[in-house]
Amino acid sequence: MITSPSNPKIKLIRKLRTKKFRDENQLFYIEGPRIISEALSENWKFDQVIYCKDLIKDDYSKQLLSNIIQAGFECYEVDKQVFESISIKSGPKGLAAILQPITYNIKTVLDQSGLWVGLDRIQDPGNLGSIMRTIDSVGGSGVILIDQCTDPFDITAIRASMGAIFSLKIVKTDHSLFSNVLSGKGIPIIGTSDHAEKDYQAISYNKDMILLMGSEREGLSPSLIKDCETLVRIPMVGKSDSLNLAVATSVCLYEIFNQNRKKWV
Amino acid sequence: MITSPSNPKIKLIRKLRTKKFRDENQLFYIEGPRIISEALSENWKFDQVIYCKDLIKDDYSKQLLSNIIQAGFECYEVDKQVFESISIKSGPKGLAAILQPITYNIKTVLDQSGLWVGLDRIQDPGNLGSIMRTIDSVGGSGVILIDQCTDPFDITAIRASMGAIFSLKIVKTDHSLFSNVLSGKGIPIIGTSDHAEKDYQAISYNKDMILLMGSEREGLSPSLIKDCETLVRIPMVGKSDSLNLAVATSVCLYEIFNQNRKKWV
Repeated sequence: MITSPSNPKIKLIRKLRTKKFRDENQLFYIEGPRIISEALSENWKFDQVIYCKDLIKDDYSKQLLSNIIQAGFECYEVDKQVFESISIKSGPKGLAAILQPITYNIKTVLDQSGLWVGLDRIQDPGNLGSIMRTIDSVGGSGVILIDQCTDPFDITAIRASMGAIFSLKIVKTDHSLFSNVLSGKGIPIIGTSDHAEKDYQAISYNKDMILLMGSEREGLSPSLIKDCETLVRIPMVGKSDSLNLAVATSVCLYEIFNQNRKKWV
Repeated sequence: MITSPSNPKIKLIRKLRTKKFRDENQLFYIEGPRIISEALSENWKFDQVIYCKDLIKDDYSKQLLSNIIQAGFECYEVDKQVFESISIKSGPKGLAAILQPITYNIKTVLDQSGLWVGLDRIQDPGNLGSIMRTIDSVGGSGVILIDQCTDPFDITAIRASMGAIFSLKIVKTDHSLFSNVLSGKGIPIIGTSDHAEKDYQAISYNKDMILLMGSEREGLSPSLIKDCETLVRIPMVGKSDSLNLAVATSVCLYEIFNQNRKKWV
């Protein structure tokens, strides 16, 4: 059992709170029985599992730990003080894990039909997590992160995704690669803009398409706007000139989903 | 000019970060030219305005400060160190204000037709702010906070509202008063639940109504469910069994808005 918060393994885990360290080590941290169970059920591999028997109270967590140990993942026990030193929760439940991030090449989008959301330089990990949660809810395939976006493996994004991060495909690309790969491939790309003339309900959406959303501050970049087959806007009648990004993305996703689920009924 | 961060006025401002202190003193804090300008344009009164000339760089902020001083509000200058001690932003822009919260009685809802959102014990200030932002965007009247909700005058809620907090009416009530006041008054109350049988797109929404949403963890309480004329659910096909609360509320609000704006076209 590890009983020192300054044990090198434990110090490494705490460093995973920074994106730089996650990128350098190609590892990320998750905590809590629910999220760990989601990762397991989506067949993600644990690099390490950390547990503290004093903090594991409920039968669900005990069974989960037993399943993880049986599956052969590297597990190690720590004492309460050590667990609390790595925990990002108030009232930690004694189960945490380290995993390797999995991301896909932009060409994945061509190989697999489905609904994708492209996000241009989005900055807020909570927004990214909520968007992933909605993509999962409407049966979408994944998210395409274009240029410098917030890290999907940030703990805030993972928590806001409610586990959707483990069932969706995450593609990382830049705007020129995005354009080059998708150019002329026949996948409809629909973007949103406050300045678009077309109402978002005025067009028919294919269920296999890419919805492009811009950053919280600046919207879509001019080069990505050029890649769009159509630009749409969500109508607004109040003082605000925009919606929260996760809200705007989700309102569009439900329009796409609603149009297509009606066709299937 | 105040030059000491331990000046009693400055200490009071820092204490406004806690809900307890905001409630006791009936004051709240806002910061930045954009949000201050929103409050001013909606005719809110400033109890105090705090500014730091060294931090005010742009003409917009200079003009805004000049307008505020001319309007006769109590203003006082502080030095950079003092402003930074009260600021909740990185890169503060030298303008902050203290205001008195304004909330309305539940009977307001009866006196004024419109679209209202009732929120049952919601906990996340970012969700509350995003919901207010969407209510404003669809031309709604306000928000009804039922039982113990997160504070709408928390700085996170205010920022997420993007100023909508100043144009919407905020009602605070409890579930029994809510039931008593609205019972038999003919205002349609539509609630949402994961377990509802009716699809949220299967009903016609009146533009004067109350949309009831439950807390992030528990959904609507049984007593509020009884108050609903109809319960609807948002369909989901993924692994998740729920959406982010601000997303779910906004998806419903846009359905209500879309149905009614079509009638007007």
